[in-house]
Amino acid sequence: MSLLVVGSVALDTIDTPLGHAEDALGGSAVYVAVAGSYFASPVRMVGVVGGDFPAEGIEFLRGRSIDLEGLEIIRDGKTFRWGGRYHTDLNVRDTLYTQLNVFENFDPKIPPSYRHSEYVCLGNIDPVLQQKVLQQVEAPKLVVCDTMNFWIERKYKELLRTLRLTHVLIVNDEEARAIARESNLIKAARDILNMGPRAVVVKKGEHGALLVTKTIVFYTPAYPLQEVYDPTGAGDAFAGGFVGYLAKTDARSDENLKRAVVYGSVLASFCVEEFSIGGLKALTEGQVTKRVNEFRDLSHFDGS
Amino acid sequence: MSLLVVGSVALDTIDTPLGHAEDALGGSAVYVAVAGSYFASPVRMVGVVGGDFPAEGIEFLRGRSIDLEGLEIIRDGKTFRWGGRYHTDLNVRDTLYTQLNVFENFDPKIPPSYRHSEYVCLGNIDPVLQQKVLQQVEAPKLVVCDTMNFWIERKYKELLRTLRLTHVLIVNDEEARAIARESNLIKAARDILNMGPRAVVVKKGEHGALLVTKTIVFYTPAYPLQEVYDPTGAGDAFAGGFVGYLAKTDARSDENLKRAVVYGSVLASFCVEEFSIGGLKALTEGQVTKRVNEFRDLSHFDGS
Repeated sequence: MSLLVVGSVALDTIDTPLGHAEDALGGSAVYVAVAGSYFASPVRMVGVVGGDFPAEGIEFLRGRSIDLEGLEIIRDGKTFRWGGRYHTDLNVRDTLYTQLNVFENFDPKIPPSYRHSEYVCLGNIDPVLQQKVLQQVEAPKLVVCDTMNFWIERKYKELLRTLRLTHVLIVNDEEARAIARESNLIKAARDILNMGPRAVVVKKGEHGALLVTKTIVFYTPAYPLQEVYDPTGAGDAFAGGFVGYLAKTDARSDENLKRAVVYGSVLASFCVEEFSIGGLKALTEGQVTKRVNEFRDLSHFDGS
Repeated sequence: MSLLVVGSVALDTIDTPLGHAEDALGGSAVYVAVAGSYFASPVRMVGVVGGDFPAEGIEFLRGRSIDLEGLEIIRDGKTFRWGGRYHTDLNVRDTLYTQLNVFENFDPKIPPSYRHSEYVCLGNIDPVLQQKVLQQVEAPKLVVCDTMNFWIERKYKELLRTLRLTHVLIVNDEEARAIARESNLIKAARDILNMGPRAVVVKKGEHGALLVTKTIVFYTPAYPLQEVYDPTGAGDAFAGGFVGYLAKTDARSDENLKRAVVYGSVLASFCVEEFSIGGLKALTEGQVTKRVNEFRDLSHFDGS
C-alpha cells in the first residue's frame, strides 16, 4: 500500500557524548519516510528544502525508492537547520539553534499523483496545515498524526479538529498528558480516544512505547542498547516503522496495531545506533526480523 | 521454602491526591513479609518496634502466618515513624518527617529458629547490618538485597562487601546507576553483575521493571492502573512477591527469575491500589493468577 509522509526536511548539527555530526540529513519527514520505506511501497514525501540541500540527500532518498515529486525545492532559499547538544543523560538536550528558513512558510501541496495515498503520516506541523493536507487526500484508509507541545499550547482548538480526522495519534508521554490535561497516562490516552483517534501510541523513549485502543493496552520496552549514539529522529523512525508496517500488511486490527508498535520500536532501535539516519540506511529483512524476535523474547515468560 | 525478611517496621502518615492515612502499618519488612506470605512458608520477620506499636498490627501480621519471634519490642521506646506527601505526579514526594526512634539503633538478632532460612530478603538497612544478618544465617539458598542512595553515598565499600554475599540485588534505576557509576542502565546492571550478584532487578516505578543476568535481559511493564492511591511500599511489595515466588517454587533459573519479576510486579500493582498495606491484606490465588495473565497479555504479540 502507498504511504504519504508530510513533515520537515532538515540539516541537523548534533553533538552527543559519543560524537558529532554536521549538516546531516534530518527532519521528521525524512526519518518517517526512510523507516517506512522498508515496508510500504510507494512512499511519497511532501516537504520543502532550499537550494543548498545537498544532492547526495536527494540521491539517498531516491535510492530508498522514495517518491520526491512532493518535495518542493526553493532555489533561492535555505533549508531548515537545527543544532542540538545531548547531555550524558541522553534524555536531556539543549537546542543550540533553530533556523526555520524555507520551512517557516511551508505550505504542503499534494501532487495529483499522491491524492489516492492509502496511508498518511502527518509530522508535527501546524494542525491547520495537517488539516489542509487531509483536504487534499481522498479517503485514506489510515491517518497517523504526530504533534508537539508548541501546537498543544498555541493551537489547541485546531489540534482538536485535526484529531477528529486522525485514526492513530503518536505522541510522547508529556504530550499525551498535555492534550488530555490529565496526569495519569492510561486515563490520558483513553481521554484522547474520545477526541477522535481509535488508537493512541505513547512513545516513552528509553521506557518503550504504549498502545491504547478502546479494548486493549499493549506495552513494548525499548531495545536494551549499551550505547546510544544519537537519539535524534528515534520517535519519527518509530512512526515510520509503525505506519509502514500497517501499510505493508494493510490490516488495522488491534493485533496488527500491536505488531506495528513492535516494528516501530525495532526501527527506532536501529535509528539510535548511529548518527543521523546512518542506522536506517541499509537494513536487511533478516536484521529486522531478528530484532522483532529479540523484542518478543524481551518480555516473554513461560506459564506460571 | 522458608523466607527470612529483615528491615524496617514503621507507622506511616501519608497524603496523596486521593486521600490520607495516619499511623498506618508500614516499613520495608512489613511490605516484603506480607507480599511474600502469599507464596513462601514460613515467613520470618526480624525488625524492631516500640511499646506504642498497635496490637492490631501484630494481629494482622500473625494472621498472615508471619513468624514474629524476631520482632523485637522495646517497651519504653517509640516505633519508627515516617510522614510523606505525594504530588499530583506521584513520582514526586516530600518527606514531612522521619522519626527513627527505636529503629535508629536497630541491631538485627536472628533467633536460632530462623538460622536455617533458605531464602533471605534484606531490606535497605546499613550494609554492615546486612552482613551481620548473613553471618547469623547458615548457607541460605538465595540472598536478595535492597539498598538506597543514603548507603551508596556513605558506605560504598561496605555495600560492595554486602554485594559479594548477594545473589539478587533489587534497586531502582537511580540506585543502579549510582552503584555502578554508569549512566546507561543496561551497562550499569551488567557492571553490578561483576560485583557479586548473579541477577540485578531494576525497579522503574510506572515504567515497570528490568531483570538482567549474564545471559538475559527481561522487561515487564507496570500494570496500567487508572488510579494509583498510594505508591508507598510498592518497591517492597515487589521484592516480597519476587522472593516469595522464588521460595515457593524453589527454582533459581533465569526462566524462574523472569516469572518472579512478574509476580513481584503483580504484588506491587495490588499494593498501590489502596492505602498502606490495604491492597495486600486479603488477596486470593485467583486474583493473583488473573493478574499474572493480564501481565502476559500486556506485552504479548503474535508472530510477524
